[in-house]
Amino acid sequence: MELKPIKLLSSGCYLPKVISSEEIDRKYNLAAGYSEKFSGVKFRHHATHESIGWMGARAFEEALEKSGLELADIDLLISAGGTYDYPLPNQASIIKKELKNGQNHTFGCIDIDCTCLSFVSAFDIASKFLDGKQYKNIAIISSEISSKGLNPLNKETISLFGDAAVAIIVAFDSTLQHGIIKGSITTYAEGAELTIIKGGGNKFFFKDYPYDAYLHSFQMDGIKLLRLAKKKIPIFISDFFSNTPLKFGEVSWVLPHQASKSGLEIFYNLFPEIKQKSLNNLINRGNCIAASIPLLLHENIENGTIKRGDILFLTGTSAGFSIGGCLLKY
Amino acid sequence: MELKPIKLLSSGCYLPKVISSEEIDRKYNLAAGYSEKFSGVKFRHHATHESIGWMGARAFEEALEKSGLELADIDLLISAGGTYDYPLPNQASIIKKELKNGQNHTFGCIDIDCTCLSFVSAFDIASKFLDGKQYKNIAIISSEISSKGLNPLNKETISLFGDAAVAIIVAFDSTLQHGIIKGSITTYAEGAELTIIKGGGNKFFFKDYPYDAYLHSFQMDGIKLLRLAKKKIPIFISDFFSNTPLKFGEVSWVLPHQASKSGLEIFYNLFPEIKQKSLNNLINRGNCIAASIPLLLHENIENGTIKRGDILFLTGTSAGFSIGGCLLKY
Repeated sequence: MELKPIKLLSSGCYLPKVISSEEIDRKYNLAAGYSEKFSGVKFRHHATHESIGWMGARAFEEALEKSGLELADIDLLISAGGTYDYPLPNQASIIKKELKNGQNHTFGCIDIDCTCLSFVSAFDIASKFLDGKQYKNIAIISSEISSKGLNPLNKETISLFGDAAVAIIVAFDSTLQHGIIKGSITTYAEGAELTIIKGGGNKFFFKDYPYDAYLHSFQMDGIKLLRLAKKKIPIFISDFFSNTPLKFGEVSWVLPHQASKSGLEIFYNLFPEIKQKSLNNLINRGNCIAASIPLLLHENIENGTIKRGDILFLTGTSAGFSIGGCLLKY
Repeated sequence: MELKPIKLLSSGCYLPKVISSEEIDRKYNLAAGYSEKFSGVKFRHHATHESIGWMGARAFEEALEKSGLELADIDLLISAGGTYDYPLPNQASIIKKELKNGQNHTFGCIDIDCTCLSFVSAFDIASKFLDGKQYKNIAIISSEISSKGLNPLNKETISLFGDAAVAIIVAFDSTLQHGIIKGSITTYAEGAELTIIKGGGNKFFFKDYPYDAYLHSFQMDGIKLLRLAKKKIPIFISDFFSNTPLKFGEVSWVLPHQASKSGLEIFYNLFPEIKQKSLNNLINRGNCIAASIPLLLHENIENGTIKRGDILFLTGTSAGFSIGGCLLKY
């Protein structure tokens, strides 16, 4: 089996303050039990004093320590996420600035944004950089704070999203034992505006459109989105596995983006055979945007569920509307 | 000479309304001649009704027509820029939505953001995707509108920046005659906040920080930035060419980011031997963020200055603070 060499060396994470669904119910005057029942999320984390860059740097430092590498060994930092501290510069540079010794090293800082699929794409791209020469070790960091951008009037999203930062350090694998079997992303333009934050970019510029909870918050046309997902996911999965040396059923673990309870249910209903193999953390973490999939990776490597040699399938949907997947040997 | 195969097939661009420096002087009550004298920019373009996605789609359609390819031949769309229509989804998905037949094709949409160096990084990354199998043709689009985010009280930036969209279509080159000799990016964390838009992200969130011309505009600590650039550019160039089969002097054309008059002067003063080989368009286009370098490419391919077989060196600085370069055979 031909592998594009990439080895996950280590991971680290930073989770801010835990918030229970009871607290959400009380804070937003919802009926007791409403938030958990609606979202399927018991606990999630919300940043208080933390910034995206700061959380990312802490996750990175944990991963770096576990890897046994020094900061001098890192050849590239990829920030893979949909949220940012500043509109400019890119988030990767801000994470680097927040590192204890970031100023002493010159590795480049690149952002890759496919919203919730940013980590999946960044992992694939990292494997393309890794050549064992110019690029030996790469840090991929998904640090996301969505809690500030949620509309308190939207009961669906206020309970669904959580904040988290995860860092994964990957290396060129000269043994050719660990790597990517296939990576792919498809984008369906008809869904481009079904999940959107309208205000705050060039189209609805701050100057002309003052803050409005609706305009500047995450909006989702849930019904149309689920309909599109239901139609396109089976096509994506079938196309993806049509030319791989492994069948979908041979995957050890599926790590689906923790989009929502109904998003995960669509996936399980379409492919009931993989429900037992699907890792999830929606109940304790919520939807952490691009950090959801690497958080599943981190937690299940740490607790021993994912073992060396396992075949992992990272997959999910993202705003855009995209469906992506990365099949790899851990 | 070993090349990472990538061939520039075609390019297209969209430029919105032209604005003269006289108009800027009049609009902002500046002394006659001030804008041009200060910035070195006679003309630049400012979007009126256009969005970033719309401009990008028009540039893409022009490039596609020239390439002789169909939209069905495109395997990936990379949006490479620092500005965006919406905070979410990513800009590439919005460009796809603005294409005439975007809905009929499923190629993936990825954003790469290294601010002004986004195109240089995206070009390098595109070459890593191109394998002649899964990825045969990729569209890289740098569409930037900065004019809305400029502080009218800041005379330096109000005259410097211009809006533009450029699309470059690249293909896997099975002849091995066209490709990248080397690509590299280095980031200096001490300069992370020397060029910044502070407001509008997670740190200074709209809700808590209403629009303020200073907070929500591009800010630049010009003196510190030029000092850092002067110190680091020679190190970058020397490191870059220390292990390439060609010397800096053997480059046919240097395409430097059109950062500013003083930014270009630093570069020419450090390396006087390449002044005659440097292409520029600052005087007619201003600093178009990530679109500056591909616009130089597009214009100089169109006018016949850049010829097949030429060795090009795309280079520049970007917010972050990064210095990057890409050496290629056209």
